[in-house]
Amino acid sequence: VKLKEVGEFGFIDLINRGLIHDSAKVIKGIGDDAAVLAPSGTNRLLLTTDMMVEEVHFSFRYATYRQVGHKALAVNLSDIAAMGGRPTHGVVSLAIPSGTEVENLQELYRGMAGLAARYGVNIVGGDTVKSANQLVINLALLGEVEQERVIFRSGAQVGDYIMVTGTLGDSAAGLHLCQHPEIPLRPEMAEVLRKRHLEPQARLDAAGLLAETGLVTAMNDISDGLAGEIREICQASGVGCSLEGKDIPLSEETRALGRITGYDPLQWALYGGEDFQLVFTVKPEGPEVIQKIFATAGLGVAVIGRITSLHEGIKLDTGEGSRALESGGYDHFSL
Amino acid sequence: VKLKEVGEFGFIDLINRGLIHDSAKVIKGIGDDAAVLAPSGTNRLLLTTDMMVEEVHFSFRYATYRQVGHKALAVNLSDIAAMGGRPTHGVVSLAIPSGTEVENLQELYRGMAGLAARYGVNIVGGDTVKSANQLVINLALLGEVEQERVIFRSGAQVGDYIMVTGTLGDSAAGLHLCQHPEIPLRPEMAEVLRKRHLEPQARLDAAGLLAETGLVTAMNDISDGLAGEIREICQASGVGCSLEGKDIPLSEETRALGRITGYDPLQWALYGGEDFQLVFTVKPEGPEVIQKIFATAGLGVAVIGRITSLHEGIKLDTGEGSRALESGGYDHFSL
Repeated sequence: VKLKEVGEFGFIDLINRGLIHDSAKVIKGIGDDAAVLAPSGTNRLLLTTDMMVEEVHFSFRYATYRQVGHKALAVNLSDIAAMGGRPTHGVVSLAIPSGTEVENLQELYRGMAGLAARYGVNIVGGDTVKSANQLVINLALLGEVEQERVIFRSGAQVGDYIMVTGTLGDSAAGLHLCQHPEIPLRPEMAEVLRKRHLEPQARLDAAGLLAETGLVTAMNDISDGLAGEIREICQASGVGCSLEGKDIPLSEETRALGRITGYDPLQWALYGGEDFQLVFTVKPEGPEVIQKIFATAGLGVAVIGRITSLHEGIKLDTGEGSRALESGGYDHFSL
Repeated sequence: VKLKEVGEFGFIDLINRGLIHDSAKVIKGIGDDAAVLAPSGTNRLLLTTDMMVEEVHFSFRYATYRQVGHKALAVNLSDIAAMGGRPTHGVVSLAIPSGTEVENLQELYRGMAGLAARYGVNIVGGDTVKSANQLVINLALLGEVEQERVIFRSGAQVGDYIMVTGTLGDSAAGLHLCQHPEIPLRPEMAEVLRKRHLEPQARLDAAGLLAETGLVTAMNDISDGLAGEIREICQASGVGCSLEGKDIPLSEETRALGRITGYDPLQWALYGGEDFQLVFTVKPEGPEVIQKIFATAGLGVAVIGRITSLHEGIKLDTGEGSRALESGGYDHFSL
């Protein structure tokens, strides 16, 4: 069924199901000029937004509509996680090429609604408009966090340790595989990497554990590569840092793809995008406590360096001595 | 200067000025993973979003960048107004073709920031990404309203009067003039109509007065033509209505354009879009009180009909008897 056959309002009726999980907080969701929400006491509100454009951020040559819907929400969840918060309510805007099949859009909403359900996020409104030829999806997401638990990127102190969750570079490796399906990586490994790129998981699990410790001094989600994210923390905090290349966690799959292609997988970790892991700084007593908590929860976490003073700059030790870490990361307009 | 020469972060630095007006409520604006906001007691939160696509919702053949920035915020302000609320914080997403001049984008932000300043709205974050060839702008806007003052579209009761602010059809008439600049309407009249289309004003002034009266039972902003908006109110409220065609307020300019072109200006009022006036229903004692308040404030308001029971349907009296009002309004996918 083509979208123009059901029309805007028919489409809204089709997708307007299973989008509200916490009806006590949603006085009115879809179906009025704006959503009406009950506030959450004295908690801080968090507000973030991310836009994804077809053939810039995703391509239906590799991704399903369901994966695109999932990812549009995941990237916003990741921003809320990086503040130490919990996501609550979202609004979705879609610019849709007129020949689009309604079934595909329903799949997109299923991908989003499935992930929203998992975290109790209410999709409370949105806008659907026409696009000339590319699908554009924008999500704006509200979250909340106790006032004393907000984690800014500006709190890193000299002597703090730098840690990351999970493994880095998998998403960039997965994108490389999507673009070069002929690469003879073992199928089960290739599948792992492609999924890391196409169905990223926001680290709300890890962020929740971290916020409880009170040991985290600064945090970013890794959307644009480790090098760019640690630079943002250092600049916002007025400090330098020293990273150990050998301690940056890489998956077996990404290492294997590196061996086959001749690429240095560390470059994917430093300059690739969309891992959506967390990089954070912790007080000197932090690593031991946090490693214990994460081990108990069965989650991976690693110490990758230390915060230094501003004049020492941003350094990486690659095993052949320490050098200035080049900036880089994904700048949308440098391409 | 081309955008790619300054890069994403250079661009954010350029526009990140004059965007915060209420620093007590904005703990952190642009420059972290999400904005951090202080809540407003027990008020309801309002959340709305609107997306505009180049060559679908606007064209640089008629509009300046400043006007596009203004309009992207105005359409969202209008949604907050229609709930009886006050706008507070917004986040902006832009998908930008790579050859775009930075100066043009600064103009776009000036248009938005100027309007934001007027209503004390803080622009607290956003996302800037690359687009293949069309500019896409999305705004998500938070607002607030006292719990007992929220005006839903579902509260209309049989016997209520139907009222509208301002004059209707001016925006559609203005668009017609943009597309047919050869039409010999007097230049000062043409300028009025074009401005109504290119620089719409959200009726926060009128909405504020109306919310205070406690007499308004349902309200919509008129973004898709009066016929569609009153239908939404009737459907949400489970009622019918009867409109008087002769009482629907039309401006001198729109009437004049109708005479020159042979179009019936009432059609622009009923089925044109983007007037961003308010249509609302009021208790039987409402019209007199409201007309007095608006007269004192120097604002236009008119009674255009009455709410009837559901089985009477949605009717319009054109002077040649009452007939069923055709649906219509702007459906983005019917084109």
